[in-house]
Amino acid sequence: LDGKKVAVIGAGSWGRALSVLLKENGYEAAQWTRKDDIKAVIEGSRAFVFSVPAQSFREVFTKASDFLPEKALVINAAKGIEIGSDMRLSQIAEEIRPDVRYVALSGPSHAEEVERLQYTFVTAASEDHEAALLTQDIFMNQYFRVYTNSDLTGVELGGALKNVIAVATGILDGLGYGDNFRAAIMTRGLTEMTRIGIKLGADPNTFSGLTGMGDLIVTCLSMHSRNRRCGILIGQGANPKEAEKLIGMVVEGLYTARAVKELAADYGIEVPITEALCDIMDGKVSPKDALASLMIRSRKCENEDILKKL
Amino acid sequence: LDGKKVAVIGAGSWGRALSVLLKENGYEAAQWTRKDDIKAVIEGSRAFVFSVPAQSFREVFTKASDFLPEKALVINAAKGIEIGSDMRLSQIAEEIRPDVRYVALSGPSHAEEVERLQYTFVTAASEDHEAALLTQDIFMNQYFRVYTNSDLTGVELGGALKNVIAVATGILDGLGYGDNFRAAIMTRGLTEMTRIGIKLGADPNTFSGLTGMGDLIVTCLSMHSRNRRCGILIGQGANPKEAEKLIGMVVEGLYTARAVKELAADYGIEVPITEALCDIMDGKVSPKDALASLMIRSRKCENEDILKKL
Repeated sequence: LDGKKVAVIGAGSWGRALSVLLKENGYEAAQWTRKDDIKAVIEGSRAFVFSVPAQSFREVFTKASDFLPEKALVINAAKGIEIGSDMRLSQIAEEIRPDVRYVALSGPSHAEEVERLQYTFVTAASEDHEAALLTQDIFMNQYFRVYTNSDLTGVELGGALKNVIAVATGILDGLGYGDNFRAAIMTRGLTEMTRIGIKLGADPNTFSGLTGMGDLIVTCLSMHSRNRRCGILIGQGANPKEAEKLIGMVVEGLYTARAVKELAADYGIEVPITEALCDIMDGKVSPKDALASLMIRSRKCENEDILKKL
Repeated sequence: LDGKKVAVIGAGSWGRALSVLLKENGYEAAQWTRKDDIKAVIEGSRAFVFSVPAQSFREVFTKASDFLPEKALVINAAKGIEIGSDMRLSQIAEEIRPDVRYVALSGPSHAEEVERLQYTFVTAASEDHEAALLTQDIFMNQYFRVYTNSDLTGVELGGALKNVIAVATGILDGLGYGDNFRAAIMTRGLTEMTRIGIKLGADPNTFSGLTGMGDLIVTCLSMHSRNRRCGILIGQGANPKEAEKLIGMVVEGLYTARAVKELAADYGIEVPITEALCDIMDGKVSPKDALASLMIRSRKCENEDILKKL
């Protein structure tokens, strides 16, 4: 790779924050917004950072793909799965341009803090280890620490599945429940995420890392998270559709919950928190009763998943 | 087991909260404080709940042991390791009374919330599965959900090692750092806890559970935690000894950090957060520089521990 130009496709707060880091590290960040000429932004760049909403990724990547060079280093900073297809974003990229070197950049990273150069740790995940190392090279500095990880599937799933748990913990916050219950739902929520991850080929350890537990912590505790805010509204009495309208953006956790519930049914695994959320969305049960139902499930052994494997 | 009397040894807020649960569940909770006759509290009880500070456990358990029946069900709700010996509390009990059926009760559980019957999930861990099930029987109700777990070592270590990370995150809070960095240190802190746990015979998965990640979350975010409060004072400029004096109680994370650092050196494993805390305690480096040093360590692969095993 040579040249100092790096394309940043997307002009949201995360794209801006990543551009600040690139400049800090001596690169020229060429930022693309919908008004610009995407060809001009892409041409001559050494790497291509995508930072558009997950549900716009297919459209924007398709548009960009005409100009991306062979084996382009594509660094995707968006998190989520595509509603409808349930595809991970790397699967979309592979469908459109199987030659690119794909890296997912994820972890606990409020954009506003990164923009102000506050200490942040993230993960650059790729099945192509050299591509992950190149991403580490480009972004890492004394404020922004980048770990590589070979488990792309686990990293992508963590960034998507955490939204379900963020809605669920938002609901309990909206109902006024306490710190014990929030920590319990986050922890048992991570167990659900891990179970789904294992079935989809992820490494369970990834869920204990920055893009699993780490991202879950910031998301479940932040008012910046629209998934959490939507949950709070539901806990306070709004119905889920109303709540999503009030948020004014796609609340991905609501859609991801549907996909998780289906997958769990197919594979015969237990996802009681996700099911409780789906029951609330279907109007089958009030938020209060849905959470109460989590308390009176049958008695469990915390490490039964592991014991089963032995 | 028969009879409705359960002895609760210890009169702190956690002992009180557990007594409330016992009464809720139809038991007669006989609570012991230092002024009472321990023999009278113990006699005729079907189970013996210990809820004294970890550093008093040896003394109080020794005193109680003269009266405990053969194969008594001992449920220890205290968390920590003994300063000086670095022994887990179950090891102390085994040394004094190897016949008892020992269960550790742990998890994210502020006593004030449990006392007000707010939803809480905890773990009852024992190498004796029936003893764990009996504990689940005694305590579980619609407000208090108890999971069993066979990994006593992992559960005990989680409750002790989290204190080190709570001091460390307190320091960064005291210095005014943000949510990204706190989540990063909690996550990488859990990695250090897990590495130590593996070397001491624990199951790594336990650290992703209620007594690992769950307890870490409530401890690192709560002003009730003296470990966190001590860290905040250090971050604000107090030296660690001064800070411990201001807290007015033993700050176990400071001592556990020493034990962890020694163990890590013996086993050749990396514990940079623990080491940074020890360096601060030794006056080798300022809190600010210690945290900055975590940002400029050599480049890492997040799943290298796992890759090494392959």
